[in-house]
Parts: sequence; C-alpha cells; structure tokens
Amino acid sequence: MADKTIILYDFPSKNGSWNAFVIRIRYEQKKCNKYCDLPILLHQACAEVQRPSFQNRLDRISDVESTLKAAGIPPTAQWPDSGKPSYTLPAIVDPSTGAALADSLVIAEYLDKAYPDKPLLMPSSTKALQLAFEQAVLSSIGPMFFQFILIKLCDVVNPASEEYFRRSRVSLFGKSVEDLVPKGESAKEEWKKLEAGFGKIAGWMKEDKFVMGDTVSFADFVIGGWIITSKIAWGEDSQEWKDIAGWHDGRWSKLVKNLEPYYSK
Amino acid sequence: MADKTIILYDFPSKNGSWNAFVIRIRYEQKKCNKYCDLPILLHQACAEVQRPSFQNRLDRISDVESTLKAAGIPPTAQWPDSGKPSYTLPAIVDPSTGAALADSLVIAEYLDKAYPDKPLLMPSSTKALQLAFEQAVLSSIGPMFFQFILIKLCDVVNPASEEYFRRSRVSLFGKSVEDLVPKGESAKEEWKKLEAGFGKIAGWMKEDKFVMGDTVSFADFVIGGWIITSKIAWGEDSQEWKDIAGWHDGRWSKLVKNLEPYYSK
Repeated sequence: MADKTIILYDFPSKNGSWNAFVIRIRYEQKKCNKYCDLPILLHQACAEVQRPSFQNRLDRISDVESTLKAAGIPPTAQWPDSGKPSYTLPAIVDPSTGAALADSLVIAEYLDKAYPDKPLLMPSSTKALQLAFEQAVLSSIGPMFFQFILIKLCDVVNPASEEYFRRSRVSLFGKSVEDLVPKGESAKEEWKKLEAGFGKIAGWMKEDKFVMGDTVSFADFVIGGWIITSKIAWGEDSQEWKDIAGWHDGRWSKLVKNLEPYYSK
Repeated sequence: MADKTIILYDFPSKNGSWNAFVIRIRYEQKKCNKYCDLPILLHQACAEVQRPSFQNRLDRISDVESTLKAAGIPPTAQWPDSGKPSYTLPAIVDPSTGAALADSLVIAEYLDKAYPDKPLLMPSSTKALQLAFEQAVLSSIGPMFFQFILIKLCDVVNPASEEYFRRSRVSLFGKSVEDLVPKGESAKEEWKKLEAGFGKIAGWMKEDKFVMGDTVSFADFVIGGWIITSKIAWGEDSQEWKDIAGWHDGRWSKLVKNLEPYYSK
C-alpha cells in the first residue's frame, strides 16, 4: 500500500493544521479515507506536538520551496515584490499517477478526475460553480479576515517559522502583520464588515445544512477551512471566536460540527 | 389564459432589452415559454421601436418607482445618497400566486419554488452555488464594466429617460457617466482588467459549453446578460464588441449563440 499513499504537505505548527487553504484538503483527505479507501499520508512538522502518524518533512515554512521543488511540484503564484515563482501549500504527490500538484482548487479537481468512481468533491457538474464559490467567499470575507488574523497566526506557526512567516507576509500584503490590524473605531467597523461578509454566505445557503443542501461538497470545505482557522488563531475562549461562532444563529459553529465526520486534524 | 400571464417589467429603450439584470429574466422567461408552457407577458416601452407583443407600461425609467409601487412590488435597495428605498428592475407579478417581486436572483428562486415540476433554473441543489456565482461574476467584471458601459447606455435608453438615467447614475456611482470612463493609459489598463475578469470565468468553465457542462442554468443567463448588454451598448461593428467577442477563443460570442434558443428579444 505504501507506494499508493498520496502525500499531503502541510505547514509546520505548534498545534495541528491552521491554514484555511490546506484545511480544505484535509477535509477532502478524510472524505477520501472514509469513503474511498484512498490512503493519504499527512506530512507535517509539529515542532511542539509530535504526532507519530505524521512524517516531519517540513521543519520550517521557509522549507516549503525546496521541499516542493524536490518533489517536482510546480509553483502556483509569483511573489508580488520580486516576481519570483512562489511555491504554496497545500500540495500533493500521488504515486499512483505521478501527479505532483499544488493549490487546493487544482487538487480538488485532480482528485475528482483521477478517482471519478469515488464520491465527487464537485458533484452534479458543479465544477465551475464550485470554483466561482471559492472566489465569492474569498471576495466576501478575505480582505477583512487577513488583516485581523495574520498577527494571531504568528503565535500558531512553530517558532522556527515565525520570522519567515512575518517577513513573507510583508512581501504579500505590503505591511507588517501589526500594521495590517485595524485599530480603534476602524477595528469595530472592519469586524462588522467581516460579519456582513459571512452574512452574504448565510444568505446564499438560507436554512440548508450544507451549501448543496444535504450533500457535502468542496464549497463546504472552503467555508470550514476559514472557520477552523478562526478557531485556532483566536482560541476557543476568545471574544472573537465567540462572536464568529454566534453569528447568523450559530450556523458557522454548527457547520464545522456537521463537517466533523469529514475532517482529519 | 390572460389571468395566468406573468408580467415582466423591463426598461424603456430605443431598441430592445439592454439591461444585463433584466436580460437574465428574459432568458428564464423564454426557457419557461419553451419548456413549461408558462406564459409570460413582456411589458416594455419601446419609444422608437413599437413591438405589438409588448405592453407599454413604462414610458420613462423615472416611472419605475410609481409603476412598481402600484403593482405592490417592494423596493430591493436604498439610494446611497438619500437612503430612500430604491425600486429596481427586473420585477414580476404572477397572478397565479399573487407574487409581486423584484431582483433577478429573487425572481429566479421564486420561479423554481413556484414551478418545481418545470425545468429548474438552479438544478441539482445548486441554489447557493448559483447565487455565489452571480457575486463572483459581479466582483470579477462589474467594476470595470460599469465605468466603460454606462456612458454608452445613455444612447440606448429612450430619449425621455436619458436625463433621469444620467442623474441616477451620479447618485449610484458618485460621478457623472463621463467622469467614470477611464482615459488614456488607464483606459487600456482597465480594458485589460475587464479581459482578465472574463478570463477568470473562462478558467472556471474550462472547455464546457455551459457553466454546468451540457445543462443550461441561471449562471449562464448571468453571463449572457452581460454579453448581450455589451453587444447592444457598443454595437456589433465597434472595436469593443469585436474585442469581447474574440476574447478566450471567442467563447463569449459562442455562449450567446448557444443560449439563443432560450432568449427572447
């Protein structure tokens, strides 16, 4: 079985998976394990929390580029300041097919195409709609989310990665994580905008359990990723998490609960 | 049959339907006529082109508010400057159920709910995905589109509506239609951004004929609406239309062609 094991690369962390984009694939991975007998081995460096089931490939976030290059996984973006290729996670290697890919959307499409007899992540010809959903969610909550959450994530990544994480955020967002955080009245307004962004998503879903009614799909993993990242970044006892968990009749904490059977921490 | 006729309100025009949001419902209407035997009567004032099949209810865009109020159709938004309720088209009245609604998304949801035995506009539990798709398209192309197209639409609305159309655009966009148009180098850059916005949508759809593969759905009418508005606003012989029609291997003009069986001018 070992040679058929799909390798998923995740970020180093003090305490489990924290990146909203990787979490999407952790959902998929569990879905695959649960329903498809498709073994996926997690590779994650946990500097403080050693998990015997994870292979520690990435000791520091700064190792992502060399690790992915060595695995033959192509870059997915460019650094805005230097224009150099940017290597991002999640990334997978599937020894059964030789596929070596990064980007959660590309990986989801790949898994559906490579394993069409398994339950689809983008069922009923919804591939284009699911990709657009990801963009709609990102444009609705992303800008507000990033400014608040990046400084909290400095405490979540492992200490060996923190300096690189801070430096590369400046490259990506043009400001330090401290300067990104809204202050005073602006903080209240931006927090209300984040709530309104989630309100848009609630408006699309209405009373439905999942985005596609009773059917779990990639779109749910996109939202679930953001919610789990929030919970980890702010902590369960924080006012921020209590706010988010309570918004829109508590639907976001309920969604994460409904998605639990599909998630692998 | 007359008492079962759904009334669709559209804008006055020199030459047929021009509003991207109303066009979505004209697609739906045709789909309903074609497949559902659901009669929909079009109400449109055509100051220059009299069409015997249309009832001329709206002589001027400024009549929208009083016409919709009289029909019991609620406002859908607020004017940004005054905060007063804003009455928008498309709007419908369905005498079979008493429904009186505005907003293309609300109307599409209503038609699927009121006539669930007819072909659905949002099939296979995709309602939330379709609503998100609308937002994703709007955020990808809307800002670029509006700044270029509003000045062209001043020549498309009927002369009796032009002054009101110009004045209300200032209220909505904070600038005159002339000042909205990018000039010089900025015009080239913004046009490239519009192309890139359409490129995103092309990236979601890949090689598929429609957004959901071979199945026509509301998402196609959303794109179709923007494309038909472009063709009408710039004119078939314009460089702008030739650009748009040629982008991404001509897929947007092909899409409008593939949607023709569903469209009622």
